[in-house]
Amino acid sequence: MTNTLTDKRAIVLAIDAMGGDAGPSAVVDGVAHAVSKGLRAKFLFFGDEKIIAPLVAEAKGLEGSEIRHAENIVQMTDKPSHVIRRGRDTSMWLAMTAVKEGEAQAVVSCGNTGALMALARLQLRMIEGVDRPAITALWPTQRGKTVVLDVGANVEADEKQLVQFAIMGEAFYRSLAKVDKPTVGLLNVGAEDLKGHEIIRTAARILREADPEMAFKGFVEGDDISKGSVDVVVTDGFTGNIAIKTAEGAARLLGKWLKDSLTGTWNARLGALLMAPGLRKFKERIDPSANNGGVFLGVNGIVVKSHGGADAYGFASAVKMAARLARRPFLDEVAETVDAVMARRRSLRKAQESEAKITAAAQ
Amino acid sequence: MTNTLTDKRAIVLAIDAMGGDAGPSAVVDGVAHAVSKGLRAKFLFFGDEKIIAPLVAEAKGLEGSEIRHAENIVQMTDKPSHVIRRGRDTSMWLAMTAVKEGEAQAVVSCGNTGALMALARLQLRMIEGVDRPAITALWPTQRGKTVVLDVGANVEADEKQLVQFAIMGEAFYRSLAKVDKPTVGLLNVGAEDLKGHEIIRTAARILREADPEMAFKGFVEGDDISKGSVDVVVTDGFTGNIAIKTAEGAARLLGKWLKDSLTGTWNARLGALLMAPGLRKFKERIDPSANNGGVFLGVNGIVVKSHGGADAYGFASAVKMAARLARRPFLDEVAETVDAVMARRRSLRKAQESEAKITAAAQ
Repeated sequence: MTNTLTDKRAIVLAIDAMGGDAGPSAVVDGVAHAVSKGLRAKFLFFGDEKIIAPLVAEAKGLEGSEIRHAENIVQMTDKPSHVIRRGRDTSMWLAMTAVKEGEAQAVVSCGNTGALMALARLQLRMIEGVDRPAITALWPTQRGKTVVLDVGANVEADEKQLVQFAIMGEAFYRSLAKVDKPTVGLLNVGAEDLKGHEIIRTAARILREADPEMAFKGFVEGDDISKGSVDVVVTDGFTGNIAIKTAEGAARLLGKWLKDSLTGTWNARLGALLMAPGLRKFKERIDPSANNGGVFLGVNGIVVKSHGGADAYGFASAVKMAARLARRPFLDEVAETVDAVMARRRSLRKAQESEAKITAAAQ
Repeated sequence: MTNTLTDKRAIVLAIDAMGGDAGPSAVVDGVAHAVSKGLRAKFLFFGDEKIIAPLVAEAKGLEGSEIRHAENIVQMTDKPSHVIRRGRDTSMWLAMTAVKEGEAQAVVSCGNTGALMALARLQLRMIEGVDRPAITALWPTQRGKTVVLDVGANVEADEKQLVQFAIMGEAFYRSLAKVDKPTVGLLNVGAEDLKGHEIIRTAARILREADPEMAFKGFVEGDDISKGSVDVVVTDGFTGNIAIKTAEGAARLLGKWLKDSLTGTWNARLGALLMAPGLRKFKERIDPSANNGGVFLGVNGIVVKSHGGADAYGFASAVKMAARLARRPFLDEVAETVDAVMARRRSLRKAQESEAKITAAAQ
């Protein structure tokens, strides 16, 4: 499998066309939308041929696509363990296999997250040196976009795993945003070095000592995410999941209140009409479709999870993200950096230990 | 010290008049504002007499107040340990002493949070049976207001502490909102019983088994907070602090974008003018002043922390909250419930253990 393709025409994306609340038509429309916006790639659609073939035939710009029939679908309620044992004939399994066998450089699915993660780990395996996967989220901020990870792959993370998340998040942001030195922060309850969990403090020390190349900015707090204080916010999956869902809930509540205030009186409605262009821009800015697509970092392949509730525009965002990552040496970079940082950490430790021995002997 | 006063005229509140970004005038104005809105209480103002006396003399409705001179102020940068050793002459220390000695039923301060917590624990001690304090936050929701705790007193909490937080939060909500059976949820990453940390799962089991009186709704997720799915959301101080700050950050970002869209063009400005009443209501709804006041639950007295950046309206909210709690048998209720739940838990454990022994003997 190669991940360093630079020839734009050579990109192949495996699309799990089944699953998601809006069904296969939103998936195919989403891919067509991405193509209409300039994406050049070949697509392999996995799913029920009878349903997908007519959709692809109707869509514009998907002439070079292939349809691969799958007998079965992973249901949203299926347990990952069940899918691993009995899911060989599902669209999700077959799409993942295309990446495993090097036929495609990335897979995009809007199906069951747990099953997709289990299949990714089973078929693609982890990048060497990475203990656990992490799921990313793109967060709109005052400065642009920030990547937050992990938002739910694991409920706990130790210091070594947080360091690996930081390295993966940095490489991810670099590939996505073409920023040479993304800034990285660890999510904590206070900016001072003394606050927060022991695990987070140790992770900060390792990053400072063993990854001098990284633009590591230390600790950030919850409100720093929307401020865009750093490009990459690193946290464990429990905290990250709660942070993102809490912010989504708050945004939805404000949206509802705003709508109430826009439609409360006839004057307000007229006012809203006059403000229409500004409000449209506001809506676009907070549109979750624009930031759709969680990437499973740490597995040895590019796997993008589109939100189950995403529409065609949302699916298009996920497909574009997959293509961008597939075109860059993203996986190799993660593997190399993790390797270098962990080696440096080991040698620093040894140096500290031998220094301690010398001090002890001298006393 | 009594906490079961029901005679409204008998309430005495200790006000730490120093500290806070807006200074003593915002504090005194805030108290006067609360009085103008119907609050009946006597106030003891602690701080620099030369500054406070003229402010109180000028304010309306504060005629019965007393001013207690304090030589010193706790600075925002003072370490709690320093204040404990050398802070006996500060306004914060003396205000806390008034509660300790039963002269006042509650204290309100907008000073250094860490120092206030340390003084509360030192002078008031913990409620018997409660291991650690928790700080509350009031969160505006689609249904009204939800209490979230802990939002930052401790970075970690074990299952027993989470159970105590749930009991304290329930009693707090009942006192504040006069709701007989507040609903309670544990913040987690998934609503299913199998997800999340072991600690949270155990806390849920204890609450179900040992507190049958509580309207415990199991697990809630981040977006449930703003939905108002439950009245009381229980979590550890690390997660709670990140949740609240993340939501504040997201709300601020949306507010900024909305402002951009309201002032972008002349049409938009005209529209905003027509919408003014609705927008005013929107602003009131998201106004942090209306929800200002974090209560230190678990200490044996009522301690309300006003936000350092609060204006007079914000301080008034904190003062009203202190008075409402002081009028209700809040502390006794916490002590009794914690005692009953922990006793029931112990007897359940014993029953389970002896059952296990019988089963083992029978085999």
